[in-house]
Amino acid sequence: MKLEDVKAYRERTAEFFRMANIVLTPEESENIEIADFGLDDLEHLGLELVTYINTDRYCGKELMLFPRQFCPEHHHPPLSADNPGKRETFRCRWGEVYLYVEGDPAPNPKARVPDKYRQYLTVWKEIILRPGEQYTIPPNTKHWFQSGDEGAIVSEFSSTSTDENDIFTDPNIVRLPVIE
Amino acid sequence: MKLEDVKAYRERTAEFFRMANIVLTPEESENIEIADFGLDDLEHLGLELVTYINTDRYCGKELMLFPRQFCPEHHHPPLSADNPGKRETFRCRWGEVYLYVEGDPAPNPKARVPDKYRQYLTVWKEIILRPGEQYTIPPNTKHWFQSGDEGAIVSEFSSTSTDENDIFTDPNIVRLPVIE
Repeated sequence: MKLEDVKAYRERTAEFFRMANIVLTPEESENIEIADFGLDDLEHLGLELVTYINTDRYCGKELMLFPRQFCPEHHHPPLSADNPGKRETFRCRWGEVYLYVEGDPAPNPKARVPDKYRQYLTVWKEIILRPGEQYTIPPNTKHWFQSGDEGAIVSEFSSTSTDENDIFTDPNIVRLPVIE
Repeated sequence: MKLEDVKAYRERTAEFFRMANIVLTPEESENIEIADFGLDDLEHLGLELVTYINTDRYCGKELMLFPRQFCPEHHHPPLSADNPGKRETFRCRWGEVYLYVEGDPAPNPKARVPDKYRQYLTVWKEIILRPGEQYTIPPNTKHWFQSGDEGAIVSEFSSTSTDENDIFTDPNIVRLPVIE
């Protein structure tokens, strides 16, 4: 992605946070992570993030999804005998989120995803999160999520985050951003 | 504290969350923890809490302070060879917080505390947190905090919470609530 595009998406994200009355410092707003997962199709696929704190014990982030944007399927694998992989709790703060995890597939899921991405979405147990609702994803469990028509903001409470260890179902994905 | 008082304080706390646009589920609102630390002086000393998640790896809470209410001085001691004690990140979401930790004492601290409690407040390095600002308190470090004239709401991202292990400077304090 080009830096000018990243800056425009940061401003768009910051506007959503303002609308939801979630306050960021100017430094945080200027450094919002725009994750396009290397696919350069942010209107459909991607995630916007502010990492408040990430230590060797816990992590806290604010996640933002543009309307109908989805975060592609991935899991957090075991990293050592003492670390079964990242565990995370998603708490919806604003908007609506359709979260998919391993289990009985929803007969009529609410997510709408372009056909070209569907082959890499293999789990379809549906959890709908509205403001104040939350769900905890166990380690090493495939999951993906999309926002509803208004977009969504989600607080993530989790164990340590090491994005470079995430495993994506879609082999075309590159997690760490490349800015031209 | 009497149950009827607890219920009234829960409703008052829920009203602050509504004002700050932080959504709780009905169950969360009905179970807000009203911590008077056994001193039955909640207008001055205490804390209101919603624990979103507390696992053996991480914890997430929303803390609320009524105007000028303070949370008494305490620390989170080491619990084992692998656990140096709870580490916590306070992020101010609404209002203003005066946080005090070990270090150079502030010459003119903003906190105002009734005289009878001052002998148990021994650390006076001041950190002022406004919305969007945050501070991480290392394990085993004495700290206490008061809200400003409007009250305050703080998101806490932390390692596992075990309130029963907290050590308070004031020997009169009982952390776990007793409801008559």
